[in-house]
Amino acid sequence: MKKLINDPNQVVMEMLEGMVLAHPGKLKQIPDTTVLVRSEAPVEGKVGLVSGGGSGHEPSHAGFVGKGMLDGAVSGEVFTSPTPDQIFEAIKAVNGGKGVLLIIKNYTGDVMNFEMAAEMAEAEGINVAKVVVNDDVAVEDSLYTSGRRGIAGTVFVHKIAGALAEQGASLEEVEAVANKVIKYVKSMGMALTPCIVPAAGEPGFQLGDEEMEIGMGIHGEPGIEKTKIQVADQVAETLLMKVVDDLQLKESEKVAVMINGLGATPLMELYIVNKKVAEILQEKNVKIHDTFVGEFMTSLEMAGCSISILRLDNQLLELLDASADTLAFKR
Amino acid sequence: MKKLINDPNQVVMEMLEGMVLAHPGKLKQIPDTTVLVRSEAPVEGKVGLVSGGGSGHEPSHAGFVGKGMLDGAVSGEVFTSPTPDQIFEAIKAVNGGKGVLLIIKNYTGDVMNFEMAAEMAEAEGINVAKVVVNDDVAVEDSLYTSGRRGIAGTVFVHKIAGALAEQGASLEEVEAVANKVIKYVKSMGMALTPCIVPAAGEPGFQLGDEEMEIGMGIHGEPGIEKTKIQVADQVAETLLMKVVDDLQLKESEKVAVMINGLGATPLMELYIVNKKVAEILQEKNVKIHDTFVGEFMTSLEMAGCSISILRLDNQLLELLDASADTLAFKR
Repeated sequence: MKKLINDPNQVVMEMLEGMVLAHPGKLKQIPDTTVLVRSEAPVEGKVGLVSGGGSGHEPSHAGFVGKGMLDGAVSGEVFTSPTPDQIFEAIKAVNGGKGVLLIIKNYTGDVMNFEMAAEMAEAEGINVAKVVVNDDVAVEDSLYTSGRRGIAGTVFVHKIAGALAEQGASLEEVEAVANKVIKYVKSMGMALTPCIVPAAGEPGFQLGDEEMEIGMGIHGEPGIEKTKIQVADQVAETLLMKVVDDLQLKESEKVAVMINGLGATPLMELYIVNKKVAEILQEKNVKIHDTFVGEFMTSLEMAGCSISILRLDNQLLELLDASADTLAFKR
Repeated sequence: MKKLINDPNQVVMEMLEGMVLAHPGKLKQIPDTTVLVRSEAPVEGKVGLVSGGGSGHEPSHAGFVGKGMLDGAVSGEVFTSPTPDQIFEAIKAVNGGKGVLLIIKNYTGDVMNFEMAAEMAEAEGINVAKVVVNDDVAVEDSLYTSGRRGIAGTVFVHKIAGALAEQGASLEEVEAVANKVIKYVKSMGMALTPCIVPAAGEPGFQLGDEEMEIGMGIHGEPGIEKTKIQVADQVAETLLMKVVDDLQLKESEKVAVMINGLGATPLMELYIVNKKVAEILQEKNVKIHDTFVGEFMTSLEMAGCSISILRLDNQLLELLDASADTLAFKR
C-alpha cells in the first residue's frame, strides 16, 4: 500500500486537522468531532445545510463548506457512514434558528444515521428536513444501497440549495429546490483501477490489466459490466447516453455538465472525455450552460471518471451561477 | 497502460479542444496551434504573460490563463518542450503593445525554445522579457536541466506577476517582481509511483512496491535517494526542512505554503502532509499567510507530492491576495 499517511486508523482526524490548519479563516472543527463548519457558523436567520458521509471522497464534502454552499460537513471513517451523534453535532453547530437541511447520498448506512440524527435534533426543537440524492443511473439497488446510489451530482445539490439558502429562503423552499435538483441531475461512472482503504491495506476489488468497469460505484460497488479497456470517446458516449436517456433530455434544453475524476485520473484525460461529451450534446442541440471538469467526488486513488448532467430551468440556472466561496468550488 | 484516451499521439490536441469546449467564455485556441489564450486576448495596454512547457502537468499552465494570471499558455507534447514557432504564436496572440513576459521553467529544451521564440518576436518589434523559474532545491543539474529544475513554485510566479501586470505595470516592473518571486520560492517533491507517457506506453522509471524517491522531478528525473516508504510526517519534515534551510527562513517571516499533488495522490493525503508542515512552521514561529492544497503542477498519474514555500514581503503578499479568475486558481 503506497500512501502518504501516518497511522491508517488516524487518517480522517489528521486530514481534518490539516484542512483547518490550511484554511483557518474559512473552516473550524467542532472539538472532539469529525465535523467541519464555516468559521462563522451558525449563520443567524439562514437555513443551515449539512452534508457528509464516509471519508475518501474529498473534496466532498468539507471542500464545499463555505458561503453559498454548505454550512457543515460531517466525516465518517473511510467509506463508512458517520455516526448519528456526529451528525447531530453538525446539525447543532449550523443551526441558525431557521432550520437545517440534511443532504444525504443514498447509501443505507448514511440514510439511517442521518435520519436518527434528525430525530435527535427534532427532539431538541431544531427543525430538520432531509433530501436523499440518487443520481447514479448505472444500477438499481447495490451493495450498500436500496434504489440508486448518490454520487457526484450531489455537488450540484450543495451548490443550488446553498445559493437559495444564502438568499434567505425558508427550510421548505430550500428543501424543494434541493429535490428539484435531485430530480434533474443524473450521473454515471466507470473505473480503470481499484483503490485501497487505508485500514484495509488492500484493494476492495480487482480489475485485470486490460479491464475496466462501466457503472462502478464510488466505493467499488459493482457496475453494469466489466469490459476490455475502451477508448475515451466510447466510454464518454456510453456513460453520457445512459444519463441523457434517463433524463429524457430534449433539443434546446439547457444543462450543466460535470466531468468528475475519481482520484488518479489526470486532468488531461478528463478534458479528452469532455471533448466527446460536448460534441455529442452539441449534435443533439442541447445547450451547455457551463462545464465543471476536475475532482469533486473521488474514491481515494481510484482511476476513472463519472459524467453528470443537470437539466437547468431558469431558477436552477440562476442559483448555479450565484457566487460561492468554498475550497473546491468558487463562483 | 490504463488511460482514458483515444490516440496516444493526439492527447494534447484533444485535451486542448476539450478545455475550450468546457470554458468557451474564458479560453480560446489560436487556430492550428497548441496555444490557449484568454478569450479577450490581447489585452490592450497590459503586459502579456505567457508560460508553457511540456503537457502532462495540468492544470499547468492553461489552467492559470485568465484575469489576474497568465494571458496565454503553450503546450508541447507530453513532457516535451513546445517548439519556438508555437511559442512565437503565443507571444503574438497576447501582445497588447506593452510587451510580453515569458515565464519559463528551467529545463534546457524549454529555455532554448522560449529564447528562440523571444528572438523571433523581437525581430518583429515585440518587446519580450524572460524569467526562468528554478525553485526545486532537490538537486543541482538534472536529466534535462542545467542548474535547478522549475516545478510547482512556478504557479506563484504566474499569480504574482499576473496581478502586477493587471494593475498596469511596465514590462520591467513585471519582470522584476517575477524575479523576486523566483528568488523567494523554493520547492521539493517526492514520488511513490511512476507515470506513463501515453506515446511511450510504459513507465519512465521504476519504484519497488515498498519504495519511494525523495527529490524526484516532475518528469521522473532522479532525486536524492530512494528509500523505503516513510510515514507522511517524516516525508513532510524532510521536504520542508530542505526548503526552509535553503530559504534561510527566519522567525516571524510570512510565507505562503503550497502542498501540490502530482496526480494520483488523494486530497486526504495532501492534507495529512499539510498538518505536519503547518505544525513545523508554527513551531518555528513562521507566519503562514495562506495555504494552497491541491493539484497545481502534476506529472500525469504519478503518486507523490511537492511542498513549496514562498517568502512574502508586503508587495508579494498584496499581489498574492489580488483577485484572479482562472480555471485552477481563483481569488
